[in-house]
Amino acid sequence: MKTVLISGLGLIGSSIARIIKDGDPTVEIIGSDPDDDSAQFLLDHHIINKRADFTEAAPKADLIILAGPVSVILSQIDQLAQLKLKDQVLVSDVGSTKQAIMAQAEALTRKGVSFLGGHPMAGSHLTGGQNGSIDLFSGAKYFLVTGSQTDQQLRDFKQFLQAANVEWTTITAETHDKLVSELSHLPHVVAATLVNNVADSLAADPIGLTAAAGGFKSTTRIAASDPKMWTAIMMSNSKAISSELAEFQAKLAKMQQAIEQQDETAILAAFAKAQRIRRSLDN
Amino acid sequence: MKTVLISGLGLIGSSIARIIKDGDPTVEIIGSDPDDDSAQFLLDHHIINKRADFTEAAPKADLIILAGPVSVILSQIDQLAQLKLKDQVLVSDVGSTKQAIMAQAEALTRKGVSFLGGHPMAGSHLTGGQNGSIDLFSGAKYFLVTGSQTDQQLRDFKQFLQAANVEWTTITAETHDKLVSELSHLPHVVAATLVNNVADSLAADPIGLTAAAGGFKSTTRIAASDPKMWTAIMMSNSKAISSELAEFQAKLAKMQQAIEQQDETAILAAFAKAQRIRRSLDN
Repeated sequence: MKTVLISGLGLIGSSIARIIKDGDPTVEIIGSDPDDDSAQFLLDHHIINKRADFTEAAPKADLIILAGPVSVILSQIDQLAQLKLKDQVLVSDVGSTKQAIMAQAEALTRKGVSFLGGHPMAGSHLTGGQNGSIDLFSGAKYFLVTGSQTDQQLRDFKQFLQAANVEWTTITAETHDKLVSELSHLPHVVAATLVNNVADSLAADPIGLTAAAGGFKSTTRIAASDPKMWTAIMMSNSKAISSELAEFQAKLAKMQQAIEQQDETAILAAFAKAQRIRRSLDN
Repeated sequence: MKTVLISGLGLIGSSIARIIKDGDPTVEIIGSDPDDDSAQFLLDHHIINKRADFTEAAPKADLIILAGPVSVILSQIDQLAQLKLKDQVLVSDVGSTKQAIMAQAEALTRKGVSFLGGHPMAGSHLTGGQNGSIDLFSGAKYFLVTGSQTDQQLRDFKQFLQAANVEWTTITAETHDKLVSELSHLPHVVAATLVNNVADSLAADPIGLTAAAGGFKSTTRIAASDPKMWTAIMMSNSKAISSELAEFQAKLAKMQQAIEQQDETAILAAFAKAQRIRRSLDN
């Protein structure tokens, strides 16, 4: 019987627990999370077998998945480097940035512990273990930054998560962080800033936000997700995100100029291009 | 029997046709649109009674609803001012900006023709008469900029659209344009620019946009809507939108600074505020 320790039983960690349990019900899943509600829910629903302290459970695990915020992942890698783990253990993570985590993981590889960086490209504006789902990552890319894992460990890892129905994609940490800064981190900052901007300026308006229609709600949906998780992402990928924000502001300024000058041709060209590309994402 | 002329049989116009037909099947609805597909679809489904040229049908109508892009609404108001219309006719529109339209409509009121500005605060990234729905505006605000209409005409108008299930909200053209520039026009420019920004910078990346997850798709969904309609909106509300864009860039620059300086407290405060406000919109 294999033992898997999942640290962080929120949306992502609890979905991984469901996926592993569905793929092989004999796997023992130990969950570790400071939040009582998520852990108790997963125990009650037999998604995890037990709940334990992270450092207590780690030495018993064949696979350890770090599924907390990036800041917690970084400190747990340090903790693991101090512990006596199983010989063949594989440590992996689901953090949204990879360079900082892969650098930290060198503390493990120096001790002969295998580390495989991971990041499923799916999520939700919902949070908590209650909202996890076996289908959360279905059809999405699951990025892998291969590190010190053996071929067998890589095969085993994919086998554990076979029910996830993901598209495994190997990537370097650098390429990953640049990609997600554009596709995920920049949009998050933009959505949150849109909400705050509108809230500030409409605070005194009795109609104000009550008039928000589907377009506004869709554009800002991700601003409802966990602020702590997203703050940790900003902290660990600040350089790439800051540079993306600078580039984005330059493009916005160009659009602003076209609108101010009522340059119909330029505005139409920009909107038509965006429509074509955005529609292609739904195919 | 009353006759209603709807000019523009796209998403909005065709939804209004469905709503009026559902409220009173005896109303004769004449549709006017250069697009053969939308018009034929609505004829085939008995949503409109006939299709006719705008200037030919206008003199027969008791209610004329201008449901094309803002630029078309503006020129059709001019056309109507040259025609001999029915004595008790009411002209209304569904344009996303109101100051330019209300100013143009003075040409009608000078001739004794009543005009009522309107704007249902709902839409979709889908386009075309085939995608209209009797429920499109359900539960949303329908802004009215009262002009020269009589009380009876206002009551009749609401009666025609009773099946829409909207929240009628009277507003001035100025307040309306400021409100929608924040809640609708700014988000549209932002979403389209996000798509174009990412497309440019990931054009050479083989993974690139294929890794876009639900968050990116949700944030940019409205960029898939009709570029011509949105260009007309930008042209007719350019001053307010440009000023919103300037304010928004200043807020983005502040966020960028916090991220660059890894100011965890400021980042968390901004994300937590955005989460709280965004969640309140779902209640």
